[in-house]
Amino acid sequence: MSELIVWTYDWVPEGPRGFVRDIRLRWACEEAGSAYSVRTVPFEGRKADHLARQPFGQVPILSDGDLELFESGAGLLHLARKSEKLMPRDPVGEAQTLQWTIAALNSIEMVSVPWWFLEVTGAKENGLTGWLESRLDHMERVLKEREWLAADRFTIADLLMADVLRVEKLRAFGDRPATESYVARITARPSFKKAHAGQMAHFAAADAVRS
Amino acid sequence: MSELIVWTYDWVPEGPRGFVRDIRLRWACEEAGSAYSVRTVPFEGRKADHLARQPFGQVPILSDGDLELFESGAGLLHLARKSEKLMPRDPVGEAQTLQWTIAALNSIEMVSVPWWFLEVTGAKENGLTGWLESRLDHMERVLKEREWLAADRFTIADLLMADVLRVEKLRAFGDRPATESYVARITARPSFKKAHAGQMAHFAAADAVRS
Repeated sequence: MSELIVWTYDWVPEGPRGFVRDIRLRWACEEAGSAYSVRTVPFEGRKADHLARQPFGQVPILSDGDLELFESGAGLLHLARKSEKLMPRDPVGEAQTLQWTIAALNSIEMVSVPWWFLEVTGAKENGLTGWLESRLDHMERVLKEREWLAADRFTIADLLMADVLRVEKLRAFGDRPATESYVARITARPSFKKAHAGQMAHFAAADAVRS
Repeated sequence: MSELIVWTYDWVPEGPRGFVRDIRLRWACEEAGSAYSVRTVPFEGRKADHLARQPFGQVPILSDGDLELFESGAGLLHLARKSEKLMPRDPVGEAQTLQWTIAALNSIEMVSVPWWFLEVTGAKENGLTGWLESRLDHMERVLKEREWLAADRFTIADLLMADVLRVEKLRAFGDRPATESYVARITARPSFKKAHAGQMAHFAAADAVRS
C-alpha cells in the first residue's frame, strides 16, 4: 500500500476549526481503516509552491504515493475507488454513490456555501435564500424516506452530504427534522468523531507553538 | 453495449437554449463515439415521477441500460469510466481528470452559478463579485500555462470547465485572454458543435409543436 498523506493548513483561526475540509479525507481514511499522516502548508501568505499544487490556494490535498489530488470531492472519489467500505462495487450502487456525491458538491453546496458566504460577509439582503430553502426542502423530502443516500448503506455520499449539511447556519435555517436526524446519525459514527478530534487537536497544537 | 439515453426537458424558453446541461452528456457521447438517444420530461409543472427520479426537478438524467444517474457531473464521470476517449486509464491521468472535473463543479461553478443567479435576479449589489474575480484570475493563471487541464490531452475536465466558463456573462467579466482562447479552442471541437446543434434543434422542434 502506498502512503496516504492529508495536507492541511498549519494553523487556522477558531471559526473554521472542525470544518476545514481535510476532515472529509481524515473521515474517509478512518472509515476505510487506511493509515494516513497529516502534513501542512502555511495558512498565512499562500506561497507560490502551494499555488502550484493547489491553484485556488485551498486545502486539502491528498497524496497517495506518487499521485496528488486537490479538491476534497476528488480525494473522496479516489479513496472510494480503493476501498469498498466507502463505495459498493456493483454498478447500481456505484452509480448511486457517484450521483449523490456530485449532488452534495454541485446541487447543495453550490447554493449553501455562497449563501453562507453572503451571510458572514454581511450582505444586506441574501439573494440566495429562496434558492437555498428550495434545495434544503428537496433534501428533507429525500431524507424523510431513507436512511442512506445510496445503495442502502453508508458511502462517501453520506459522508459528504452530512459534512455539507452539518454547518450550523444551515441547521438553524428552518425546521427540517429528517435532515437534523440524518446529520446527527451520520456524524455519530466513530470515524467522524475521530477525524473531528484529530483536526481539533492539530490546530490546538499549532496554537501552543504560536503562543 | 447497453443503450444510452440523455433525458432533458421537452421545451425551454429561448434564454437557456444552448446551455441546458444535457449538452454536457450529448457532447461526451459525441466525443466517445457512443450512440445515444434523447428523451424528455415536461419543463412545465414538474411531476412527481420526475421528482422521484431527480429530487431537485432538474435535467439531465442519464440512462445506461438499467442504470440511471442524475447530476451532469456524475453522468460525465460515468461515461468517462466507459471510454478512454474521455479520460486516460493511467492512475496519474485519471487523478488529474478527477481533480479538475471536481474543480469545475465545486471551485468554479460553486461561485459562478450563484454569481450569475444574483446578476439575473437583479441583486443591487452582487456580494459574490470579489470571490468570482479571484477564482477566474486563478483559472487564467492556470490556462496561461497549458493547453489541457489534465494529462496533456482532452478529457471530461476540459469539456466541463469549458462549458462552465463559456457562459457569456462570465466571459464579459474582465479581460482574461488565456481563458477566452481556451473556451474558443475547446468549443471549436466538432463534438461540441454537434451537441450544441442537437440541443438547439431539439428545442426548435418543440416550438414547432407548440405553435
